[in-house]
Amino acid sequence: MQGAEKINYLDHAATSWPKPAQVMEAVVQAMEQDAANPGRGSHAMAVRASRILFDTRKALAKLFVIKNPNDIAFAINTTMALNLAIKGFVQQGDHVIATAVEHNSVRRPLEYLKKTLQIEVTYVEANEQGEVEAAQVEAAIQANTSLVVVNHSSNLFGSILPVAEIGGITRSRGIALLVDAAQTAGMLDIDVEAMGIDMLAFPGHKGLLGPQGTGGLYVHPRIELAPLLHGGTGSQSESPEQPKVRPDCYEAGTQNTPGLAGLKAGVRYVLNETVQNIHTREWMLTQRMMEGLLAIEGLRVLGPQLGKARTGIVSFVIEGADPSEIAFILDQHYNIAVRSGFHCTPLAHGAAGTLETGAIRASVGAFTTEQEVDAIVQAVIEIKQHYN
Amino acid sequence: MQGAEKINYLDHAATSWPKPAQVMEAVVQAMEQDAANPGRGSHAMAVRASRILFDTRKALAKLFVIKNPNDIAFAINTTMALNLAIKGFVQQGDHVIATAVEHNSVRRPLEYLKKTLQIEVTYVEANEQGEVEAAQVEAAIQANTSLVVVNHSSNLFGSILPVAEIGGITRSRGIALLVDAAQTAGMLDIDVEAMGIDMLAFPGHKGLLGPQGTGGLYVHPRIELAPLLHGGTGSQSESPEQPKVRPDCYEAGTQNTPGLAGLKAGVRYVLNETVQNIHTREWMLTQRMMEGLLAIEGLRVLGPQLGKARTGIVSFVIEGADPSEIAFILDQHYNIAVRSGFHCTPLAHGAAGTLETGAIRASVGAFTTEQEVDAIVQAVIEIKQHYN
Repeated sequence: MQGAEKINYLDHAATSWPKPAQVMEAVVQAMEQDAANPGRGSHAMAVRASRILFDTRKALAKLFVIKNPNDIAFAINTTMALNLAIKGFVQQGDHVIATAVEHNSVRRPLEYLKKTLQIEVTYVEANEQGEVEAAQVEAAIQANTSLVVVNHSSNLFGSILPVAEIGGITRSRGIALLVDAAQTAGMLDIDVEAMGIDMLAFPGHKGLLGPQGTGGLYVHPRIELAPLLHGGTGSQSESPEQPKVRPDCYEAGTQNTPGLAGLKAGVRYVLNETVQNIHTREWMLTQRMMEGLLAIEGLRVLGPQLGKARTGIVSFVIEGADPSEIAFILDQHYNIAVRSGFHCTPLAHGAAGTLETGAIRASVGAFTTEQEVDAIVQAVIEIKQHYN
Repeated sequence: MQGAEKINYLDHAATSWPKPAQVMEAVVQAMEQDAANPGRGSHAMAVRASRILFDTRKALAKLFVIKNPNDIAFAINTTMALNLAIKGFVQQGDHVIATAVEHNSVRRPLEYLKKTLQIEVTYVEANEQGEVEAAQVEAAIQANTSLVVVNHSSNLFGSILPVAEIGGITRSRGIALLVDAAQTAGMLDIDVEAMGIDMLAFPGHKGLLGPQGTGGLYVHPRIELAPLLHGGTGSQSESPEQPKVRPDCYEAGTQNTPGLAGLKAGVRYVLNETVQNIHTREWMLTQRMMEGLLAIEGLRVLGPQLGKARTGIVSFVIEGADPSEIAFILDQHYNIAVRSGFHCTPLAHGAAGTLETGAIRASVGAFTTEQEVDAIVQAVIEIKQHYN
C-alpha cells in the first residue's frame, strides 16, 4: 500500500495514510462500473450510484448509532459540515458556547457570524493540557444560548472532551449540541443518542479511512437547518425552493460517488476492526511515543499526561528549537512525516503556551507500527544531540 | 473501461462515463502515493499533494485562458461553485438578470436571496428552442443590476447562449457576468478574457472527464467574494478571520486530492484532444441522432433545429407517451441509459411546452459511438411501434 520510498507517516491527524486496499478497490470499481449520477436518472447505473450513497449512509449510521441514515448529509469535508451546522442553525442575537480547543473550522464561522448576525460567542477556557470540564460549559450558559459546539478531541493536544456529560447538560437545558468529530470519528466510540449529540460533523478521510473529498453531518430529526447550498437535488425539480426532504435538502448538486464508495469500504473496515480495538492500539502507540519523548531533556509533550486518556496525537516542543526546522529535518533526513505549526487552532496554543512557536505534531493511525513510533523517538534524540 | 454488461450510455449531461484510463490511474496513484493533506504539512508527501492541486489549477487555467491559476477555487460540484459566486457576490437590494434556461443550481440560490436579501431577479425569456439573445439581456438591465448569470448551454435544449456578446455588454456597463459552464466546460471553447467572463463555474465530472466530487469557480482578480465556507486553510492559522489570499480564501478544509488528480488527467486529455475536435464530434453525433429521431412520427426534438449549433444534448418527447416510461423501457429492454424528467430546469420546460410531462434527454460525450446513437434511434422506433 506504500510508494517506492518507505515513509514513516505520522500525520494521521491531517489525513490517514495508507488506506485499506478495499477503499482503493471500491473507488476504482465505482468509477469503472457504477459512477453514473446518483438520484439523477433511473437507469441501472444511476440506481447503482444511488445505492452506493445509501449504503455509505447506512454504514455510518451503524457506526454512530443513528436511527435514520437519511439524517446524514454528505459534504466535501468536515469544514463544510461545520459551516452547514453553524450557519444553518444560529440565528441573529443567539449566544453560542465553544471552547478554546476548537479548530478554525469552528472559530472562523463563529467569528464571521459575530459580525454578520451580531451573535455572542463564549470560548470556554482549556487547561494547560487542553482539557475542558463540562461544568465550565454549564457555567457559560446564558438565557440566549442556542448552541454548544465542542471538539471531541483537540487536534493539538489529543485531549478528549467530556461530550456525553456536556450532552446531558445541553439536552436538559434545551440547547443544541454540535460535536466536531474530526479527530475521533472511527477512533473513539460515538453514540449520538447516548451522548446527547444533536449534530455531528465528521471527516471521511481521517479515522474512517476513506478518500479525501468526503465527510458529512448528522442532523437530529428535530433540528431544521437553513441549507448552505441551494440547487438541484434530483427531486421536486419544479419547485423554486430547496426541497425539505432529507438528505436532499442539504445535498445540492452531484455527490462524490467514487469517494463515498471508498468511504463505505473504510467505515466497514472500521466496523469490522471495532473502534475500541483501533483506539486501544492507537493509545498504546501514543504512550510508547510519549515514554520515549519524555526521556529527552528540554522536550515538552503537550496534552494529557502519560497514562491518561487521549487520542492518537502527540504534540511536542523542544526548548530553543524551531518546530518547523525539526519537522523539516525529520522529513529530509529521516523520511518521517509530521506536521509543524499552528494546526489551525490558535486558542489552543494560547492554552499550551506555544503561541509564539507552534508545535510539532506526530499522530498515529490504524496502520502505524511500533517501529515507526520508535523511529521518531530515535530521530528526535539524534536531532537534539546535534542541534546548535 | 466498461463493466461486464455493455451499456449504451447516453447520459453524459448528468456525468461522463467511462473516464479515460489516465483519470483512473491518476486517482489511484494519488491515493497510493501522494494523498497526504495538501497545504497542511511540509513533508514530502504533503508537498506532492499540494503540487497536484497546483497542477490541476494550471491545466484548468490553460483550458479556460485564465492568467493566474490561483484565481480558480475548487468546489465539490458546480452547485457549490455557483452558490459561492451568487451568495458571495450579490448584495442586499441588488438586481440580478438570469435566463429561463438556468438550472436550479442558479435559480434556487437566487430565489433564496430574493427572500433573505430582498434582491430583484429578472429571468430573461427563452424562445421555444431554448435560445436567448444578448439584446434581451441588455434590455433587462436596471440601474441596480449588479450581476448577470447565464447558462452557457441549456441542460434541456442543448442550445448555446451568446456568452461573448453578453460579456461585451456587461463589461461595458460595469456589471459582473457569471457563466454556468456545467454543459460546456471541455466541450465548447471558453476564453474568460475574450468572452468577458468574470466568474466561471464548472464541473469536473462532465466534459472535463474527471471524477465526481470535483469542480470549481474562476473569479476575476477584481472581484472579491464573501466566502461560502469559513475554516482552516493551512495559512494564517492565528487569525480568527478567513485569509484574503487566493485560492485559500475560498477553499476552507481538506480538498479532494485524489479527485483533483483525476481531474488534472481529464483536463490534460481534453487539451490533448482539443475542445474543438471534441465539440465537432459530439455535434455530428447529435445531428445523426436528430436525423433518426425526426423521422419518427409524433416525436418532437427540443432545442435548436437540425444543422444549428448545439451541445451534445438531444431532448425529445413522444406524443401520448410518458417520458419516464420510455426511459424505463430503454434501460430495461435495450440497456440504453438516458434521463427522463425535469432535469432541474422547470423554466426551460415552460419555454418548451413540456412542463406537464418532462422530456427524455439523450446526451453524448467524448466516447460516444455512432453505434450507440443508432441504437437509441432504432430502440425508439421499436418502442413507438409497440406503444399503444
